[in-house]
Amino acid sequence: MAYELFYWPNIQGRGEFVRLALEQAGAPYVDVAREDGGMETLLALLDDPGAAHPPFAPPILRDGERLIAQTAAILLHLGPRLQLAPADEAGRLWVHQIQLTIADLVAEAHDTHHPIDVELYYDDQKPEAARRAAGFRNGRIPKFLGWLESILARNPEDSGWLVGAELTYADLSAFQIVEGLNYAFPIAAKRVLAKTPLLASLAEEVRALPNIAAYLASPRRIPFNQEGIFRRYPELDERR
Amino acid sequence: MAYELFYWPNIQGRGEFVRLALEQAGAPYVDVAREDGGMETLLALLDDPGAAHPPFAPPILRDGERLIAQTAAILLHLGPRLQLAPADEAGRLWVHQIQLTIADLVAEAHDTHHPIDVELYYDDQKPEAARRAAGFRNGRIPKFLGWLESILARNPEDSGWLVGAELTYADLSAFQIVEGLNYAFPIAAKRVLAKTPLLASLAEEVRALPNIAAYLASPRRIPFNQEGIFRRYPELDERR
Repeated sequence: MAYELFYWPNIQGRGEFVRLALEQAGAPYVDVAREDGGMETLLALLDDPGAAHPPFAPPILRDGERLIAQTAAILLHLGPRLQLAPADEAGRLWVHQIQLTIADLVAEAHDTHHPIDVELYYDDQKPEAARRAAGFRNGRIPKFLGWLESILARNPEDSGWLVGAELTYADLSAFQIVEGLNYAFPIAAKRVLAKTPLLASLAEEVRALPNIAAYLASPRRIPFNQEGIFRRYPELDERR
Repeated sequence: MAYELFYWPNIQGRGEFVRLALEQAGAPYVDVAREDGGMETLLALLDDPGAAHPPFAPPILRDGERLIAQTAAILLHLGPRLQLAPADEAGRLWVHQIQLTIADLVAEAHDTHHPIDVELYYDDQKPEAARRAAGFRNGRIPKFLGWLESILARNPEDSGWLVGAELTYADLSAFQIVEGLNYAFPIAAKRVLAKTPLLASLAEEVRALPNIAAYLASPRRIPFNQEGIFRRYPELDERR
């Protein structure tokens, strides 16, 4: 039976980390809210008073009888099923730990344009966003990407992937944040990535995977846009 | 062999979720940075160029040969070992999903006093903090606590705990956020908790657990303070 992914239909957002794993694995799935009437299905799911395990927010995965929310929890569930996680428990937890740290980066990237209130428009928090983005560019991006670089450098398999000898969903997620940062902060991201060549190389390797390349070229890949987590506001990037 | 917890010695912070689980289980552990010379040990661990699985940030747990960071990943690891998680995999993932959502609340609570830059003082971002705290009090606290209340109301075991018939680490974590919100936002938290009686009751049940009661009365429990995640700035709470 096909997996069902419930996520906002107009953005990559957090759902994209799940989409990339499903696409790379060639797993059958329905991106529910992008189907006719699917948005109503998503909203009904969020409000379902009968749900034993109510999801707090999308993305949500339905796998048979099970309903799972929280991006990292979804990937923890999917990893072994899609052959995108190590076979041993310690390896799986390490991949999950990397994913959780990537999730922290994603939340901070979001807050660069919404530092005050997610319910307000960006235009209502522009000066604050400029201050927050400066700290993100100068402190946080180098720290997060440098950490990923150190993991690549220390992988005893020297495979070019983050964990062990084989691709895992953490590699797909690392690709996605490189893409997102390059979109949102092209100048700052380029500067940092010049110092993290292993990570930059990993992103190119992921992009060239046949299933990922086909996905990126398909209409299933939603372009980055100003509704998503990674947004391009030139005033939040460095000056040339 | 005793577990080793590496966390900042002067705050509850994210380490407290791990401390509560270890204390409730009566598990032997060393709170390394609170021992003589322990802070140097913690800093050396963060900078260890030989670490195969470098931690991004504390808390970090050492369990024999394994080194695990990210609070929710630590608890995922400890849950079954401390009998604080369900026996079945689906139940464990559900407890983990709750913990991940609590982690999101914790990050947002932190950002109420540091909406702009964690490297700056609160005094350098007070007007922004006031705006962020308003959205947190009025929108986010009710949403997060209401979600936990709905989980309690829907637990088919009707046990008073979040998942199944037995206490899990998610219950301990829910107690901790109730404590933290009551400390940081006493007026707002009281208002919201009046509408989430099951959650308020859970917090009292946790507080009365013999091992937790003994811990809270001991010097091992660091008091809330102005260095931690939950801080009391009266200007960030509602007005009476």
